[in-house]
Amino acid sequence: MTVPFSTFAGFRAMLAAQPGPDAAAMAAAEGRQAQLTKPPGSLGRLESLAIWYAGWRADPRPAIAAPQVIVFAGNHGVTAQGVSAFPAAVTAQMVGNFRAGGAAINQLARCFGARMDVVALDLDRPTDDFTQGPAMTEGDCVAALVAGWQAVDPGCDLLVVGEMGIGNTTSAAAIAHALFGGSAVDWVGRGTGVDDAGLARKAAAVTAGLAGNTAAVSDPMVALAALGGREIAAMAGAIAAARQHRIPVILDGFICCAAAAVLAQAQPGALAHCVAGHLSAEAPHARLLAALGQEPLLSLGLRLGEGSGAALAIGVLQAALACHSGMATFAEAGVAAG
Amino acid sequence: MTVPFSTFAGFRAMLAAQPGPDAAAMAAAEGRQAQLTKPPGSLGRLESLAIWYAGWRADPRPAIAAPQVIVFAGNHGVTAQGVSAFPAAVTAQMVGNFRAGGAAINQLARCFGARMDVVALDLDRPTDDFTQGPAMTEGDCVAALVAGWQAVDPGCDLLVVGEMGIGNTTSAAAIAHALFGGSAVDWVGRGTGVDDAGLARKAAAVTAGLAGNTAAVSDPMVALAALGGREIAAMAGAIAAARQHRIPVILDGFICCAAAAVLAQAQPGALAHCVAGHLSAEAPHARLLAALGQEPLLSLGLRLGEGSGAALAIGVLQAALACHSGMATFAEAGVAAG
Repeated sequence: MTVPFSTFAGFRAMLAAQPGPDAAAMAAAEGRQAQLTKPPGSLGRLESLAIWYAGWRADPRPAIAAPQVIVFAGNHGVTAQGVSAFPAAVTAQMVGNFRAGGAAINQLARCFGARMDVVALDLDRPTDDFTQGPAMTEGDCVAALVAGWQAVDPGCDLLVVGEMGIGNTTSAAAIAHALFGGSAVDWVGRGTGVDDAGLARKAAAVTAGLAGNTAAVSDPMVALAALGGREIAAMAGAIAAARQHRIPVILDGFICCAAAAVLAQAQPGALAHCVAGHLSAEAPHARLLAALGQEPLLSLGLRLGEGSGAALAIGVLQAALACHSGMATFAEAGVAAG
Repeated sequence: MTVPFSTFAGFRAMLAAQPGPDAAAMAAAEGRQAQLTKPPGSLGRLESLAIWYAGWRADPRPAIAAPQVIVFAGNHGVTAQGVSAFPAAVTAQMVGNFRAGGAAINQLARCFGARMDVVALDLDRPTDDFTQGPAMTEGDCVAALVAGWQAVDPGCDLLVVGEMGIGNTTSAAAIAHALFGGSAVDWVGRGTGVDDAGLARKAAAVTAGLAGNTAAVSDPMVALAALGGREIAAMAGAIAAARQHRIPVILDGFICCAAAAVLAQAQPGALAHCVAGHLSAEAPHARLLAALGQEPLLSLGLRLGEGSGAALAIGVLQAALACHSGMATFAEAGVAAG
């Protein structure tokens, strides 16, 4: 599919014209739920998930047969500010680990039958240090949005996007701060495990980033370019592409949600095809989910990134649809409906 | 394997002599976790689950290859008190549905690659109405414990026990009240969906059950016989059998936890091989989990029974072990360890 944007203005126009769920399929799925051999409502959130998924797939009785996990990787100039417990070289090393099948996300993707793709974005060309000015030009940011858009397999039926990028919780914190206000300390967490001094450096970097990129506060796309990383922009592009193909998305943790939040602030309702996979242990994730109006499916203390929490939630979605599409109705089973 | 008990006294003696986890395997698993390509602790609860599972399997790097789901069904004389929204005939109808593959638990078991067995316990012979005296004799209760014990496949590597039995949330409430005190209203919930009048009838039945079976308060095995159902006793027998075979167990909702609580009160530590799969929407389940010191893996509003919430959590355990046993170490992957 041709990429339907080549500028921020074009990206915004595309977002404003994206498809919604199929109302007839949702209504039919809701009707089916009421006939399945269980007390009404007794499958809890699995019921609403199935109806939501049916709507996006425009199919009242769908299956999840082909999930896709994409891990985007990028490097960040802001690592010069001492914001991570790991050296920047780890980004490329972990890309090698993803390609060799040795990372957590590889095991999780395999566990739930998902295809996994890895997209490394100019690792030898980190974004500029956003404490000194914009991290990316509009052109660089659009290129990353396009890379994300093109990485989505139009034939997949569920998408997880994850990331790897030493320094990127600081970038995500700056984006969230620009989009939702508050103060820098509201949005920084310990990432891969910084100490108190590292946490203070992160907050200082976020404060400096907003002070030096004032236009970011009033324009979510500018926030993405000025404070983001290539992998964050690519996640935003992939999430938008999924909606164009009517593919539901499971959001991962803090960094993924910062990418998603750019879409939500650029176009209200842009995340209607997304569900939050988990609540991360990265402290500001709860605040970000609340800002997005998202209720996470899981809360197991993960804070790894890579799409790991969202991948874990693939099993919940698969189970919801297995029940919805596979269960017998009261009439089929000869069970009294109460 | 011979069943190592034929009386309550024998069952208690067996519980007191059950095996524990393998300390060497747990230590080796903990050492392995520290070497995997992720920041320490970043997989959250998946890490402790993997170490716990490794201990019970006495294998520092195990896989989950053969989960078993067993659904036990029984009928309850207490349904005469108008405690359920469904007629008692539904128990047998749902057993037919389980055998035909049409219920939620069938889809969930298949989704996570689990074998599923259905054990119907004397459906044409309901327990006696516990508001009028003991539901079962010791002999009947031991027979159900034995049925549960024998239903466990010694070759499985993870066990989920579920239940079907119209009226059994009332039975579970009475057991929990006998074991943990409080008042009847603390332990009754809406089950399959009773209205306020039904809820009041449940509380009255629980109060009458304890008043007419006073020995239940001081002896958990007597509580099981006097207030329980056959499927509840069978779940207790199966959970104990799993420990004998070093098979970890995922506990389901309120009724399953009431069965498990009998073991915990009969023998402190009897549930060390168990993890709570989910927090049910059945209101008293939270209180029961707290009494057992169990933190649920999932909280998605399910209240179906059948083992459904626990089966959903099989995916979480599988993912935890897939990461633990499948990930590369820092040394293997050539990644800097921070």
